[in-house]
Amino acid sequence: MDHTATAGINIQEGRKRVVIEGVKPEIDGGRFPIKRTIDEKVVVDADVFADSHDAISCALLHRKEGISGWTEVPMEHLGNDRWRGHFKVTEIGRYLYTVRACVDRFESWRRGLAKKVDAGQDVSVDFLAGAELVEAASQRASNPDAKTLHDLADVLRSGKGSSERLHLALGKELAAIIAQYPDLRFASTYDKELAVVVDREKARFSSWYEAFPRSCASDAGHHGTFKDCETRLSYIAAMGFDVLYLPPIHPIGRTNRKGGNNTPEARADDPGSPWAIGSEEGGHKAVHPQLGTMEDFQHLVAKAQEQGIEIAMDLAFQCTPDHPYAKEHPEWFHRRPDGTVQYAENPPKKYEDIYPLNFETEQWQELWSELKSIVVFWIDHGVRIFRADNPHTKPFLFWEWLINEIKRDFPEVIFLAEAFTRPKVMYRLAKVGFTQSYTYFAWRNTKGELAQHFTELTQSEIRDFFRPNLWPNTPDILTEYLQTGGRPAFMARLVLAATLGASYGIYGPAFELLEDQSREGGSEEYLDSEKYQIKHWDIKRTETLRNFIARVNRIRRNNPALQGDWSLCFHATDNDQLICYSKHTEDLTNTIVVVVNLDPHHTHSGWMELPLLEMGLNPDQLYQVHDLLSDARFLWHGPRNFVEINPHVVPAHIFQVRRRVRTERDFDYFM
Amino acid sequence: MDHTATAGINIQEGRKRVVIEGVKPEIDGGRFPIKRTIDEKVVVDADVFADSHDAISCALLHRKEGISGWTEVPMEHLGNDRWRGHFKVTEIGRYLYTVRACVDRFESWRRGLAKKVDAGQDVSVDFLAGAELVEAASQRASNPDAKTLHDLADVLRSGKGSSERLHLALGKELAAIIAQYPDLRFASTYDKELAVVVDREKARFSSWYEAFPRSCASDAGHHGTFKDCETRLSYIAAMGFDVLYLPPIHPIGRTNRKGGNNTPEARADDPGSPWAIGSEEGGHKAVHPQLGTMEDFQHLVAKAQEQGIEIAMDLAFQCTPDHPYAKEHPEWFHRRPDGTVQYAENPPKKYEDIYPLNFETEQWQELWSELKSIVVFWIDHGVRIFRADNPHTKPFLFWEWLINEIKRDFPEVIFLAEAFTRPKVMYRLAKVGFTQSYTYFAWRNTKGELAQHFTELTQSEIRDFFRPNLWPNTPDILTEYLQTGGRPAFMARLVLAATLGASYGIYGPAFELLEDQSREGGSEEYLDSEKYQIKHWDIKRTETLRNFIARVNRIRRNNPALQGDWSLCFHATDNDQLICYSKHTEDLTNTIVVVVNLDPHHTHSGWMELPLLEMGLNPDQLYQVHDLLSDARFLWHGPRNFVEINPHVVPAHIFQVRRRVRTERDFDYFM
Repeated sequence: MDHTATAGINIQEGRKRVVIEGVKPEIDGGRFPIKRTIDEKVVVDADVFADSHDAISCALLHRKEGISGWTEVPMEHLGNDRWRGHFKVTEIGRYLYTVRACVDRFESWRRGLAKKVDAGQDVSVDFLAGAELVEAASQRASNPDAKTLHDLADVLRSGKGSSERLHLALGKELAAIIAQYPDLRFASTYDKELAVVVDREKARFSSWYEAFPRSCASDAGHHGTFKDCETRLSYIAAMGFDVLYLPPIHPIGRTNRKGGNNTPEARADDPGSPWAIGSEEGGHKAVHPQLGTMEDFQHLVAKAQEQGIEIAMDLAFQCTPDHPYAKEHPEWFHRRPDGTVQYAENPPKKYEDIYPLNFETEQWQELWSELKSIVVFWIDHGVRIFRADNPHTKPFLFWEWLINEIKRDFPEVIFLAEAFTRPKVMYRLAKVGFTQSYTYFAWRNTKGELAQHFTELTQSEIRDFFRPNLWPNTPDILTEYLQTGGRPAFMARLVLAATLGASYGIYGPAFELLEDQSREGGSEEYLDSEKYQIKHWDIKRTETLRNFIARVNRIRRNNPALQGDWSLCFHATDNDQLICYSKHTEDLTNTIVVVVNLDPHHTHSGWMELPLLEMGLNPDQLYQVHDLLSDARFLWHGPRNFVEINPHVVPAHIFQVRRRVRTERDFDYFM
Repeated sequence: MDHTATAGINIQEGRKRVVIEGVKPEIDGGRFPIKRTIDEKVVVDADVFADSHDAISCALLHRKEGISGWTEVPMEHLGNDRWRGHFKVTEIGRYLYTVRACVDRFESWRRGLAKKVDAGQDVSVDFLAGAELVEAASQRASNPDAKTLHDLADVLRSGKGSSERLHLALGKELAAIIAQYPDLRFASTYDKELAVVVDREKARFSSWYEAFPRSCASDAGHHGTFKDCETRLSYIAAMGFDVLYLPPIHPIGRTNRKGGNNTPEARADDPGSPWAIGSEEGGHKAVHPQLGTMEDFQHLVAKAQEQGIEIAMDLAFQCTPDHPYAKEHPEWFHRRPDGTVQYAENPPKKYEDIYPLNFETEQWQELWSELKSIVVFWIDHGVRIFRADNPHTKPFLFWEWLINEIKRDFPEVIFLAEAFTRPKVMYRLAKVGFTQSYTYFAWRNTKGELAQHFTELTQSEIRDFFRPNLWPNTPDILTEYLQTGGRPAFMARLVLAATLGASYGIYGPAFELLEDQSREGGSEEYLDSEKYQIKHWDIKRTETLRNFIARVNRIRRNNPALQGDWSLCFHATDNDQLICYSKHTEDLTNTIVVVVNLDPHHTHSGWMELPLLEMGLNPDQLYQVHDLLSDARFLWHGPRNFVEINPHVVPAHIFQVRRRVRTERDFDYFM
C-alpha cells in the first residue's frame, strides 16, 4: 500500500464493508447528549448496509457510563436499509450507545441455499461451504454451543440425505445458535459513542408553584418568613403541586435599590427586588435575615418534603454593589473608564442596582469555581432543583461545564432555564444541559400558534434535548389574554399549560386569585408587582381557582398519558376557537382528549375529528368519554363528535377515553 | 478550577462566548466533502450567536488545500441568528472552509451609544469607553491604520464637542477601519474544517455517448477496431457529444464464455461479453487484440480530443477464469470447499464466466494497490474519465480510498458510478467520491415520478454530493416505455434526459436508430444484445434521431441554463401528460422552459403556469418564448399559457424565454 493517510480513511479498516450512518437520535453530530427519564426507552435508528448482496447483522450497543463492556441488543430491519433497536434506561446518570454491524455470512449462505434449492440446483458444495461457516462459529462459541455447532457442521459435511441437511441448514435452531456468535472480525462500529443523560421522573413530569416567601405572612403588613412558608405548604400541596420555586432568598442590596413599581428611588421601607442579590449580610450563600435563618430554610425544605413538595432555588448570577464579591473580587466586574463598576444595562435601559459578572475576566476560572460552589452549597442544604435566571446572559460554555460538573456528582439535580429569547439560543441552552426550559407558551394564544409551537417542541428532534415547562404567568409576565379574559381566561390557560405540558407552573397566589391588573396600558408587568414590594394575598377568598387547579393536577397525577409530551397530537375542529388534542400512553391503556374554548367571552361549538384507529378504538363500536373536569360521561360513535363549551362554566373538557363500553355497569348511575 | 475534563469542554476556551452550529453545507457531520465545479460559488450558512446582547462579527474562512492561511469573507446576518457568506472556487482540487465569529465590542458599544443618545442620556463616560476600544484596535492594526485609529481614539477622549465625537463614533469610516482588525482573542472557530472537491466543468455538464468499439466496423461481418472508432468520431461529434464511453476494451475470457443472448454455451465465433475480462492475452492493462494495439487506442484518444470528445474507460473490477490474476494471485479469489474458485452468483443466477475479487482476502492491501495501478495505467495512456461498473459490489471504503488517491494526483479525473441499486447505497457511493452517478431516470416515466425524483436530487442537500447523469437507455436497459412508444418515446426521453440533467448519455447507435426489440416479454434486455455479439448498425439510414439529438445538444451548449441542475423547478399544468419545468442561470439572463408530452401516442393540450416574478419577468408585460426545437416564437402574457403537443411531430418544446419584447425588430420575419 503506497499511501496510508488518505483523508478520512483508517487503512486498518479496509475490510470493514458495512456502512453505518444516519444514526438517530443524535444531536449536532453527537456533540450533545439526548435526554431521557428513568425507565424510558431509547429507540435508536440507523442506516446500515454493505456492498453486494450479503445479509447483515446489526446490534445496538449500550452501557451505563463508567461500566465497561457493552450490552448488545439486536436491531431489526425496517426496510430501505433502515434498522431499529431500543433499550431502557433504568438508572439516573449517563448512558452511552452506538451501533455495530457486520456481514452475516451464515445468513447470506442460508438465503442463497434456499434460492438454489428452489431452482433445483445442485447444492452439495454449498453444504460444505455451510459446514465451514458453522465450524467457524463453533470456534467463536463457548460450550455447550461450541460442541453443538461442531456436531452440526459434521452433519452438513456428512453424506446424510440432502433433505436432512437442508432441514438443519434452513431451520431456526441452527440460525438462532449462530446468531449469538457473530463473526466480528470485520464488524463496523459507528464512529461515535452517543450519550444519554437520564434524569429522575420529575425532569419529565412536574407541577411548579412559584411564590415569594416574603409575601407568605398570614397577616398583612408583615414580612413573610420561611416559617410562614411552612404554613403555606399544605395549601400548595392541596392544589397538587410538587415543586415550590422561591425567587432569590438572599440578602438584598441597598445601593440604588428600586422602589415600588420599579421606580428608581426606593423609600426607606421598600424591600427591594430579591434579584438584587448581596448586602453586608452576605451574598449567594446567605439568606435574607428577614426571611429567617439558614436553619429555618432547611426546616422548610424538610417540611415541604413531608408534603411531597421540593423547594426549587433561583440561580441569579448577578450582584448588587453591596455584594461581598464587589469588594472581595473587583476583578470579576467590568470597570468603566471613570473607575466606576459597570452596572447592568440594555441601552437605553439601566439597572444601576445590579453589577453583572464579567465572564471575560482574566480570572474567569476562579469565577466559574465560585459559582459552582454556590450550587454545591445549596445542594448541601437540601436543594435539588434550580431555576436559572436569564441564563442566556451568561456564556453557554459556562453552563455546560457547570451542569456537567454538578450532575456528575449529583445526577438527580434538575436545572430549569428561564430564557425568554430567540429560539436558537433557547435550544442551545437545552443542548448544553438544562433539564427543562421555559417556552413561548405565554404568548401562544390561537389554535394555530399553539399547534405549531407544540408540534415543533414535541414531534421534532428538538424533543430529544428540550423539555418544555409551560407557564401561563410569571412575576414578569401578565399576558394581555389574562389581563382581559377574566376567570375563563385563567382557567383555559391553566388547562392548556397542564395538559399540553407534562411540566408546567404558575406564579401564585397571583394566578389562582385571578390577579389581572397590569402596570400600564400595553405592559406585561403586574401593577404593584411583588418583585418590588411585599403583598398580602387573601388565599381564603371565595373567588379563587384553587379547587379547579387541584382537580386539574389530580387528573394529571391519575393519568399517565399527561405525564409525558411525546404523544401529543392535535386534531381537527371546524371552529377556530376550539382547540382539540390528545395524549396517550405508549400501550394506549390511557388516552386523554382535551378540548378548550380559546375565546374567554363566548360559547363556542363545533365538530371535532378523532383518529380512532390510531387511538386504538374500533370505529364501529361505541366508546365512552369521561370528562374528568365535570365528571360527565358521553357515549360517542365514529370519529366526528360535537362539542359546545361555555367558558363561563368551564372553558374546557379533559376527556378520558374508555376504549370498550361493555355493559351498563360501566356507568356510575348503574353502580 | 477543580475539574478540567468535563465532557465536551475544552477548558482553554472558557471565554469563547460565541456559538457556531448548523453549518451548511456539511455532509454527515463533515465526514465527506461537498462537490463543486470550477468557478462555482460555495454558499455557506451557519447559526451564530452569543450570550447577552452583544453584536457579533462573523467570517467565512476558506483556502485551497495545501495553502497555509485562511482567506476571510465577512458573513451577513440573514435574521434569526442565521448568517451567510460565500466564496468562489477557482481551481480544481480540494478547498477547505469553516466559520469564525467573535463578539464585536466596538459595534456593541456603537449601538448602545446611539440608543443612549436617542434617549438623551449622558454619554461622556461612553466616549471614554469607546476610545479604549479604538485604541485597542489601533494596537491590532498596522500602519497607517494604527496611526489613524490612535488619533481617532484621541478625538473620542478629547474635550471636543459631543456632536463632533458622536459623528465620528457613529460614522461609517471608523467602523470600516475597525472591522478590518477584529478582536480575535476570544473568537470561536467552528470545530470542523469542511472540504470541497472542485472538479472541472465536465463533472457538472457533459453529454455522453456509449458505443461498443467492436460494432463500429463500416462493413457488416467485421470485428470493429479502434481505427473504425476513429472513423465514427465525426458522426458522434456532429451529434454534439463530448464523452465517448467504451465498454471494456480488454481481452475477453474463453472459459465459460457466454453465447448470443446470454446463452450458457458460446459457439466458436461468439465474441463473448466485454465485461468478461482477462485471457491469455492479458487483463485490465491490456487491449483486446481484435480491437487493435495500445498505440491504436492512444491514437483514438488523441483523434477524439481533436473533435472535442473525451474517451471514457469502463472500470469493471472482475476477472474471467483466464485472467492472469487467477494464476498469479489466487489469494485474491474466494475458493470453495471443493477447491474450485467461487464464480459470481446472485442465487439462483450464476455467472460462471466471472470470478469476483474477494475484498475480504488477507492480501486486500495488495489487491487495492493493484486496482489503483490499473487506473493509473490508463491515466498514463490518456484517459481522464472512468465509468465504474457495479461499484456497489465492491467495498465503499475501497472506492473512497481509490478515488481520493487518484484525485490527489490527478484532480481532473472524473468517476461515474454505475450503480442501479437502493437509494442509500447510491448516495453513499457519491459521498465517498464518485463525481457523477447514474439515477433512476430510466424508470421514472410519469409527471409525478419525474418531478419527485428530480426535486429530491436537485433541491435537497443531496445535490451537494450527488451529481445525476441521466440515461434513457443502456446496453442493460431497454425500458418498456421505449419498447412500446416508438419514435415519440425516444424523442421525449431524449429531451427529458438532456434538459432535466446537465449530464446525460445515450447508448448508441441503438438509441438514435430507435432500436426497441427486447429479448422476451417483460425483459429490459435488448434482443441480440451487443453485450454478447457484434452488431452492424446502419447509421446512415433515414429513420434516425441523429439530427434531432444534434439540435438538442446544440441547445444545451448555447444555453447555460441547461448546464447546471440546481435551478430546476417544476411548474403546474392541468394535464397529467404534460410535464413543465424550467432552468435558469443565477443572473436570470438565460431561462429555459421545457414542456414534454409524456404520452407517446396522443396529442395533449393544457394550461401551464409559470412563476413570472421568480423568472424575472414583469407580469404586466408581454414576453417572448422561442421554441428552440421548432424555431417557432410566441408572444405570451401572464403566467397561464396554453400548449398543445402532437408527439408524432415533436413531443416537446424547449422554450428560451426572452424577457423583454421591445420592438418588431426582435422577430426574425422583420429582419
